[in-house]
Amino acid sequence: MSSLSQIGETKIIEEIAKTFKTRDPSVVCGIGDDAAVIRSDKKKLLLTTDALLEGVHFDWRFTTPKLLGRKTLSVNLSDIAAMGGRPRWAVISLALPGRTQAKVLREFYAGLKFQAKAFGVEVVGGDTDHSQSGWKITVALLGEADRVVFRHGARLGDLIWVTGSLGNSALGFKILKESGEKRKYKKFIEAHVNPVPRVKEGRTLAEKDLATSLIDVSDGLLLDLKRLMDASRVGARIDADAVPWVPGFFEACLSLKVDPLELSLCGGEDYELLFTAPPRRTRELQKTFSRLKTRVTCLGEISAGRRIEISGGGKKVLKFKRKGYLHF
Amino acid sequence: MSSLSQIGETKIIEEIAKTFKTRDPSVVCGIGDDAAVIRSDKKKLLLTTDALLEGVHFDWRFTTPKLLGRKTLSVNLSDIAAMGGRPRWAVISLALPGRTQAKVLREFYAGLKFQAKAFGVEVVGGDTDHSQSGWKITVALLGEADRVVFRHGARLGDLIWVTGSLGNSALGFKILKESGEKRKYKKFIEAHVNPVPRVKEGRTLAEKDLATSLIDVSDGLLLDLKRLMDASRVGARIDADAVPWVPGFFEACLSLKVDPLELSLCGGEDYELLFTAPPRRTRELQKTFSRLKTRVTCLGEISAGRRIEISGGGKKVLKFKRKGYLHF
Repeated sequence: MSSLSQIGETKIIEEIAKTFKTRDPSVVCGIGDDAAVIRSDKKKLLLTTDALLEGVHFDWRFTTPKLLGRKTLSVNLSDIAAMGGRPRWAVISLALPGRTQAKVLREFYAGLKFQAKAFGVEVVGGDTDHSQSGWKITVALLGEADRVVFRHGARLGDLIWVTGSLGNSALGFKILKESGEKRKYKKFIEAHVNPVPRVKEGRTLAEKDLATSLIDVSDGLLLDLKRLMDASRVGARIDADAVPWVPGFFEACLSLKVDPLELSLCGGEDYELLFTAPPRRTRELQKTFSRLKTRVTCLGEISAGRRIEISGGGKKVLKFKRKGYLHF
Repeated sequence: MSSLSQIGETKIIEEIAKTFKTRDPSVVCGIGDDAAVIRSDKKKLLLTTDALLEGVHFDWRFTTPKLLGRKTLSVNLSDIAAMGGRPRWAVISLALPGRTQAKVLREFYAGLKFQAKAFGVEVVGGDTDHSQSGWKITVALLGEADRVVFRHGARLGDLIWVTGSLGNSALGFKILKESGEKRKYKKFIEAHVNPVPRVKEGRTLAEKDLATSLIDVSDGLLLDLKRLMDASRVGARIDADAVPWVPGFFEACLSLKVDPLELSLCGGEDYELLFTAPPRRTRELQKTFSRLKTRVTCLGEISAGRRIEISGGGKKVLKFKRKGYLHF
């Protein structure tokens, strides 16, 4: 008899995927990517769900109801972004303690609405229940797409790209937990409590057919790169020195005594997009992202074999044991 | 400052519905019915979500992982049935304690798969998390429909109908909690732990355009009738003597010392369909249900005013204080 903690999340998901494998022609892509792809009429639909649980995914000491409302939608928006889709309709399932103040719930919904409006999403339904412990929020988000980018299209020789910068959210979380200097490190805290999903960037990649594979970085770069590699049956060579940091990230890590490379390679909740593209598309890609005003960085290339090789990173000894955030 | 317990579920949902009111033409029906109705291409999509929480909605002493898997889907299937739709695709969000045995999870998924197969649903995605307290299961179910039946179409003079029989699940729950004679009352326990959603019946009502309004009885007949009345802005006269019971229900109630009328009018989780139809459709309706081999009973008629008038019921004093199961 083994418990889930012993078996691990990855194996559990594999098993579930096997259980629900299907030949139904309406299911273009079932379990195993960022969102399911469904064919209804001529259009492709994207369906995803993600939960935020008090004490597991968030802590009331570190966020506000409004920010939580925004983040609740953002983590789901990121999954639709990671398929290159347009998010459209959401349903929210909420379980709340009876003592919850109505004001807190109103602010949560105000934040959710703000984010929904910003990304063109309509909240069309939900379910409220009584919770005996903390808040449990589950969102299911439905999107549309004409063209979809999966995890599984990376090919030998493709370059590996990432949007924005990495490690900010993990650093922000550390600061929230440990540091007194919250004001000085505002941008890292912001990255943690109010991440911005890369919806526009994902759509553009899909519409312009610029990426061969695409995933969002939610559990740490290395873990999500591994997922992309496994789906594509390829390996990767990345240059640790290329990993994008925002100005001040390195200095903040030094003064807080944390390894910046570990945070940016293994930290979770970046919600950046990680994707691959053939080298010949590099110029078009860079032009496109410059128009979008979004930073994009080449981290390395897709290789044969099924391993990640990391070069650079100076003489730092990386602790790769904690490869992202596994739930069990 | 008021807490959710003080405000009550109905008011909370009203407020949420107001917050997310929309003029987006793709949203045919947002918050306020059993499922959202969305227009994508030419087809109508139905989206609903429902959660089962350990300690709130289920108790491991009274069910098995397999039955729980079935019921998880069934409560969502019932929402699609209550719109007259075809359930098609589901995503499951699960939060589980780390100590959960893998065998238990496998059986849960086996039950879920069984029910999915029985109703033509594909499980296309999900999300697994670690829970610090008990199991939390959230399903989002996407369906399709050509014609939809809302809650809000009941008209003066329409007859009020209900499928199957009422009170079995509430009685079953009482037996599980209190009685030692579990074997004798198997059918009531079965109604509670393994309800059968009326998907076929709902679809038929929609396809044949037989009902003017439709809702499922999940929180007790009176409460769900009230919802249908409020949405349709009408009243109702029902005959308590007409409320359908299965053979043995009355006797079981007597020997367990519970009021059969209270259980069948206010008990929850029947998952029967409650609907209205003009009197001239009665014959066609009865023929249709006879072909479906599903019992259907006329409970009364839609009246002016906005109240429920109940006649019959002998000299029983009904305790209407507990009008169904409100979550706060």
